[in-house]
Amino acid sequence: MPSNERRYVIKLGCPDRTGIVAKIAGFLTEAGGWIVEADYHSDPDTNWFFTRQEVRADSLPYGVVELRKRFALVARELSGQSDWSIVDTGAKRRVVILVSKEGHCLYDLLGRVHSSELDIDIRAVIGNHTDLASITRAHGIPFHHVPFPVADPEGKVAAFAQLRQLVDANSPDAIVLARFMQVLPTELCADWAGRALNIHHSFLPSFVGARPYHQAHKRGVKLIGATCHYVTAELDAGPIVEQDVIRVDHDDSVADMVRKGRDIEKVVLARGLRWHLESRILVHGNKTVVF
Amino acid sequence: MPSNERRYVIKLGCPDRTGIVAKIAGFLTEAGGWIVEADYHSDPDTNWFFTRQEVRADSLPYGVVELRKRFALVARELSGQSDWSIVDTGAKRRVVILVSKEGHCLYDLLGRVHSSELDIDIRAVIGNHTDLASITRAHGIPFHHVPFPVADPEGKVAAFAQLRQLVDANSPDAIVLARFMQVLPTELCADWAGRALNIHHSFLPSFVGARPYHQAHKRGVKLIGATCHYVTAELDAGPIVEQDVIRVDHDDSVADMVRKGRDIEKVVLARGLRWHLESRILVHGNKTVVF
Amino acid sequence: MPSNERRYVIKLGCPDRTGIVAKIAGFLTEAGGWIVEADYHSDPDTNWFFTRQEVRADSLPYGVVELRKRFALVARELSGQSDWSIVDTGAKRRVVILVSKEGHCLYDLLGRVHSSELDIDIRAVIGNHTDLASITRAHGIPFHHVPFPVADPEGKVAAFAQLRQLVDANSPDAIVLARFMQVLPTELCADWAGRALNIHHSFLPSFVGARPYHQAHKRGVKLIGATCHYVTAELDAGPIVEQDVIRVDHDDSVADMVRKGRDIEKVVLARGLRWHLESRILVHGNKTVVF
Amino acid sequence: MPSNERRYVIKLGCPDRTGIVAKIAGFLTEAGGWIVEADYHSDPDTNWFFTRQEVRADSLPYGVVELRKRFALVARELSGQSDWSIVDTGAKRRVVILVSKEGHCLYDLLGRVHSSELDIDIRAVIGNHTDLASITRAHGIPFHHVPFPVADPEGKVAAFAQLRQLVDANSPDAIVLARFMQVLPTELCADWAGRALNIHHSFLPSFVGARPYHQAHKRGVKLIGATCHYVTAELDAGPIVEQDVIRVDHDDSVADMVRKGRDIEKVVLARGLRWHLESRILVHGNKTVVF
Repeated sequence: MPSNERRYVIKLGCPDRTGIVAKIAGFLTEAGGWIVEADYHSDPDTNWFFTRQEVRADSLPYGVVELRKRFALVARELSGQSDWSIVDTGAKRRVVILVSKEGHCLYDLLGRVHSSELDIDIRAVIGNHTDLASITRAHGIPFHHVPFPVADPEGKVAAFAQLRQLVDANSPDAIVLARFMQVLPTELCADWAGRALNIHHSFLPSFVGARPYHQAHKRGVKLIGATCHYVTAELDAGPIVEQDVIRVDHDDSVADMVRKGRDIEKVVLARGLRWHLESRILVHGNKTVVF
Repeated sequence: MPSNERRYVIKLGCPDRTGIVAKIAGFLTEAGGWIVEADYHSDPDTNWFFTRQEVRADSLPYGVVELRKRFALVARELSGQSDWSIVDTGAKRRVVILVSKEGHCLYDLLGRVHSSELDIDIRAVIGNHTDLASITRAHGIPFHHVPFPVADPEGKVAAFAQLRQLVDANSPDAIVLARFMQVLPTELCADWAGRALNIHHSFLPSFVGARPYHQAHKRGVKLIGATCHYVTAELDAGPIVEQDVIRVDHDDSVADMVRKGRDIEKVVLARGLRWHLESRILVHGNKTVVF
Repeated sequence: MPSNERRYVIKLGCPDRTGIVAKIAGFLTEAGGWIVEADYHSDPDTNWFFTRQEVRADSLPYGVVELRKRFALVARELSGQSDWSIVDTGAKRRVVILVSKEGHCLYDLLGRVHSSELDIDIRAVIGNHTDLASITRAHGIPFHHVPFPVADPEGKVAAFAQLRQLVDANSPDAIVLARFMQVLPTELCADWAGRALNIHHSFLPSFVGARPYHQAHKRGVKLIGATCHYVTAELDAGPIVEQDVIRVDHDDSVADMVRKGRDIEKVVLARGLRWHLESRILVHGNKTVVF
Repeated sequence: MPSNERRYVIKLGCPDRTGIVAKIAGFLTEAGGWIVEADYHSDPDTNWFFTRQEVRADSLPYGVVELRKRFALVARELSGQSDWSIVDTGAKRRVVILVSKEGHCLYDLLGRVHSSELDIDIRAVIGNHTDLASITRAHGIPFHHVPFPVADPEGKVAAFAQLRQLVDANSPDAIVLARFMQVLPTELCADWAGRALNIHHSFLPSFVGARPYHQAHKRGVKLIGATCHYVTAELDAGPIVEQDVIRVDHDDSVADMVRKGRDIEKVVLARGLRWHLESRILVHGNKTVVF
């Protein structure tokens, strides 16, 4: 995505020890691999090692399937606990977006796709309201309306089943909750783990849950924030991918905070999504390494 | 715009002296005016006084026409040099947007209108290319294509004449150059003075003119910026309305800077436009007071 | 403090109604008062009005005592609930600083006094450790050591009594807890209400209490913060005066966060103290208006 | 400096090609080297490769002298143009600071040394005024006064000769111009190349030269900045190490800008110095890579 040049992106996490860099670099060099970008991180607290490598696809004598087969051996030699993946940037990443009524994040993502900044395939936008159907379809993207009945637990279960089917049918690399105002059931969180990105409109862990701008206004904070995180079963408690803040003062009503906050929600979500799709994020426990 | 409540917004600049606040406040209070927001600034360098007042329309016993007539007397008593205006927020502000190929600022503004964050009337979008015709029309807004011939001075003059006609026909309160890549002729700058807002993709006065991100990359700066300013005859030298920056590092190519820079261009332009339309900006010499 | 020119600073909070601005401005203008700076704020939620006015002392025909007497009448006419004060910038503000071992905030404040940026009279520095005695005395400021015994409740009570005596003997306009690591007893919080400023090393309300950087590191946040607030009986829950944040990433250990955090603690505390001493802060309920 | 653990820090720049990472990592791994931190960067514009590696000293079977001898062979094999260095964190870094009258940067650095945040040996502070003699000596650091006569070119030459002698006698790893207001002669710039760090009180390349805050005030910018750069013969044009900005508005006089600007000057200089002493900065042409 960062360039038109096709690349293979290797991500690996494993217990730390000497020689990991040499082993991986040696493996790639032997095969003639041209490493375009390489990042490493050792976490002394968990004694875990993280790396991400971008290799020019045309520098290797084989394709991604063979690379995966060969790298699996390297990873296994490093540790039985190695957690790795290899992504081929030649394949367009598939994205499904979930929305409710607020359109600022969707508009922002559509604008980035239109400008080719995000070279992704938005397979579908799914909304529990129809407010964003028309802007979605104006971009030639299917919009699905899945209404969520209020105070009807069974109806909700059915709605989530329909939602899941619509999402899963597209095998998305990322499921983006772009101000989607329904709380995902635990099993969906589990099945979409590591692929579902949410934008929460506060600087977590402050102001978890509903109406965070109201909470912020009540507490009289001088900065408001937004947090992009992976969705987990515990509400607003998943691994944090990115955060940012914007200044407010006594003059700002809740409505002003909502308005100002949108500008950081948009950009924080867009950065998080970009990093996710570029395979820059490694999750370990409840924390992220972002290369 | 900040609320559904109708208001009259008074802006005044005049030579500084004692008693200005008392005079204006006294005038408004006598008429029963409920001042919702009031700002004052004295500039010791130029000995100039600036104020902006928001009054609830329903608190006055007369309308905006009468208010203007009466306030004119107050302003004249304060000084023969008083420069003032009164805007009625009940009348929707009219905006014309000029674009070229880059769509991020236009998308951003359309998104803000869609969400009702900007409650404005975009009368037309005019482009010297057609890239943004379809997204414009998807919002029910007229798009006009005015091609600018390369290396054809006479053709350019004709194009600007057509552009001007299309703009002026809409009597816009703001003319937004949303990454419009043609330099306005001096007489247009003069005629649109105080109404034409440009977004320049650098932290002015650094990197005036063409390809500022290339200049920034070459110089090795650690932050890049964007500047919203009023258009004047001297290129990129008009009164600055708003600026912001974003961090870059040695890893960022020119293309990365272009991408990151867009996120601040959008928000800086949107803030500048909002403040302009809310009558928050007072220009004095080549500087702005933003209340 | 902002200038060598002597000024009277009027702060007022009262229930909102029409005509307040006119009344105050009229009162000052009648006396010939030259208003150098004027700020107003109406809070629609609490229906409360706030103002701060800076008047040139030499523009009034009387001194601060008479001004207070006359303004008292104005304030009372506005409302029986008016809460106001008038400060004479001609009198140097008196400050007492409480410290423990960490010296970055003290160094920072001493540097600002040395450069005349803060034109204040630091009457004393009081520490429950002696680490900062020598730098304090090098500036000709008395340092008092008040040890706080561990696990000795009675000893603590005695220590706080001694601390209080040392502080109160100086009648300070501000009591600065510059990383003072003892929790003030409730009655001291009450007696010093509105004068005791604390710097907490987190972006409140996140990470209240002990070891906030450890908490932040554990949660994996991408920004850390600092908060300057007035001390109240509830720990880290007083009215927030100022906050700021700095970016961290997965590479940052707790020690790195401590180091980076210091840079914002210093500046946030210094801003808060400056605003307090310039009479820029109006507290209402648990929130602040900062003009 | 980042830890008490002794480390060897390897910096290398050379023409880019495949296999560099593998070669260096292989060399270190063979010797049993435990790489604690590793960074890489390829610059496609200049086709240059940069790396920095931190190795635990106790993981190698030999000392820094032998490491340098052996690494020299590796570097030469990579390219005849390799530019590299190896620093032993066990040896305290030596620093000389040049000052004039303004003390905020000096205070800041002294505070960081006092708190052990900067574990460095400040060999001397040299001032062309005596304002900062007393605070320097209160820290047990020698202060040298080298007056610079006004309008006396020969006197200036003599003063610079004396300055140079005082600096060079300490063989400093860094020469810090902490708001030193004399322009270094070309030959000093050359001899101290890559070791002399300046803090300029503007966001370069805006407002080069004298009185940048006055220039900024005149232009009406909405943010002011500070830049830490290596000193070169061309004034304020050396490789930029770090920059930051702070918001200002129409209310800020030049004096306010000076005051606000100090807070970023301090922190930008401290960051730049830290990175320099941690061998994090690689200069190539007029740009820096900061790992």
